[in-house]
Amino acid sequence: MALDSTMTDRTCYPTTPESLLPLVLAAMQRTPDARLRELMAGLTTHLHRFVLEHRPTEAEFERAIGFLVGIGQATGATKNEVILASDLLGVSTLVTLLNNPHGDAAAVAGAAVTADTTGTTNTTNTTDTASHAALLGPFWRANAPACEAGANIARACTPGVPLGVSGTVFGADGRPLAGAVLDVWQASPVGLYENQDPDQPDMNLRGCFTTDAAGRYHFRSVRPAGYPVPTDGPCGELLRAQQRHPYRPAHLHFMVSHPAHKLLITQVFADDSEHLASDPVFGVTAALVGRFELTERDGAALALLAQDFRLVAGEPVFPHPPIP
Amino acid sequence: MALDSTMTDRTCYPTTPESLLPLVLAAMQRTPDARLRELMAGLTTHLHRFVLEHRPTEAEFERAIGFLVGIGQATGATKNEVILASDLLGVSTLVTLLNNPHGDAAAVAGAAVTADTTGTTNTTNTTDTASHAALLGPFWRANAPACEAGANIARACTPGVPLGVSGTVFGADGRPLAGAVLDVWQASPVGLYENQDPDQPDMNLRGCFTTDAAGRYHFRSVRPAGYPVPTDGPCGELLRAQQRHPYRPAHLHFMVSHPAHKLLITQVFADDSEHLASDPVFGVTAALVGRFELTERDGAALALLAQDFRLVAGEPVFPHPPIP
Repeated sequence: MALDSTMTDRTCYPTTPESLLPLVLAAMQRTPDARLRELMAGLTTHLHRFVLEHRPTEAEFERAIGFLVGIGQATGATKNEVILASDLLGVSTLVTLLNNPHGDAAAVAGAAVTADTTGTTNTTNTTDTASHAALLGPFWRANAPACEAGANIARACTPGVPLGVSGTVFGADGRPLAGAVLDVWQASPVGLYENQDPDQPDMNLRGCFTTDAAGRYHFRSVRPAGYPVPTDGPCGELLRAQQRHPYRPAHLHFMVSHPAHKLLITQVFADDSEHLASDPVFGVTAALVGRFELTERDGAALALLAQDFRLVAGEPVFPHPPIP
Repeated sequence: MALDSTMTDRTCYPTTPESLLPLVLAAMQRTPDARLRELMAGLTTHLHRFVLEHRPTEAEFERAIGFLVGIGQATGATKNEVILASDLLGVSTLVTLLNNPHGDAAAVAGAAVTADTTGTTNTTNTTDTASHAALLGPFWRANAPACEAGANIARACTPGVPLGVSGTVFGADGRPLAGAVLDVWQASPVGLYENQDPDQPDMNLRGCFTTDAAGRYHFRSVRPAGYPVPTDGPCGELLRAQQRHPYRPAHLHFMVSHPAHKLLITQVFADDSEHLASDPVFGVTAALVGRFELTERDGAALALLAQDFRLVAGEPVFPHPPIP
């Protein structure tokens, strides 16, 4: 059906619910920006298919509109409830996975061939070409203080199990990368970031570390705890209606940058963390689970995390801080 | 892939972007309300398919989030920008069409059979079983004044072409329906509703008329003009980016109620109106175009509209007024 917005005869009116979509797409066809045209056509097509398949009632439609108004109006200085809604549907993680290919597709393809002969589809991280990316999350702050190698980012008395983190950053050529900066941030052992918690000093559990000539970094901290996503808005209501818990597994955030490489934003999850298999925002992948080795020093518990990062070629593009 | 949210082994992590959707659906599977479970699964499935097919960049994703925050925050006492966004994508009209079947599907099916022998697929309204519904729109007010048959709803000097409207309301049994109430509202000849326009008296161009023993109604008014949807928010920006105009064709709103029938909310468009074929909210169907007969009385122009309505059995459920 060829349609022109200047047509005045009645063939351009819908006769059935199914006949509406081509009219809407025709109205959007003059969009000069080809990419916007494609995205809006795709979105509109899927929205119409969803409505045609599931036939929301007028009351259900009203409720959906109310939810969308609610998440927009609940967004402010301390949280972005629209991003949270996207997180809870797995859409944010999907966008992250698509935009940060890490070689897993190749690994899976390789494993699939193996499966024909061995009956197993297990994959390992050894064929990864780059570290997995993960969501930035709402708590990153720009300008975390630069620290000496080995410094402790627990800046005041922060009770908890001491943690030592170390590893190597590799460049696009596969060799250790000197001068890469690791911006690290994490929640405290009670599950709060410093800017949520009046008991923590400014910039507690945040710091920037630079790799040495051998591409190595190391720092000290305390083990982070998991914490709930905000549950006081429409998204909390949705989680309760779906009988889903809000607790993210314990993790450390890393933003690894180097002038000749793509920025890597990622999270490393504690392998003994609760809720590892039911992260409400679907942020955990096998490659992002770090092994926290529990040991002892001078009779006190100590956790050690060895974590390498592999960057890909590109230019670092830093995000806007989600909060001031 | 059978998934349980209590699983702790790593098979529940996504290995590819495509493998994320089953994990998200599994997390939502315990939703006690079966209908919410179905709707959220359908919506999530289509959102993931959309993202997989069109692969938004992280910058495009950020822009989409910003749009959603913007329409929520632009919604307030005078407009609902989320509903407007739904209108502009044809989703509101689609929900209206699905929830208000009017026999057109049968009419089209009948015409298709005819087409085999006559080569034409023209349909007429004669096989319709009920009047077409249309969007309520944002301007309905509860408690419009009850009027005598023949009254003029132009309550003060409202310059414009006089309009006479008359017709019959038919019940579910196909016979004229006495005691049906027609709640009528419209924009002025300059395209403004009374509550947008300090120059119009309260409740101007609004009124309720009751059908007589023969199911007849009639009233007087002035011809309405078309008007733009709000363009001062994110939806206006979208329309400009899509090179779409914001002007709705001129129309009258009708809400027809009777205790033993489903409420009919509809609009009747002037057949000589501009933008009839390019309504930005896709509210026009062939059956909703009324023939405005232009004539003369005492040397002055006069428009006449003959408009019947056919109700279906049910109970009237009145909407919440979109504005106070």
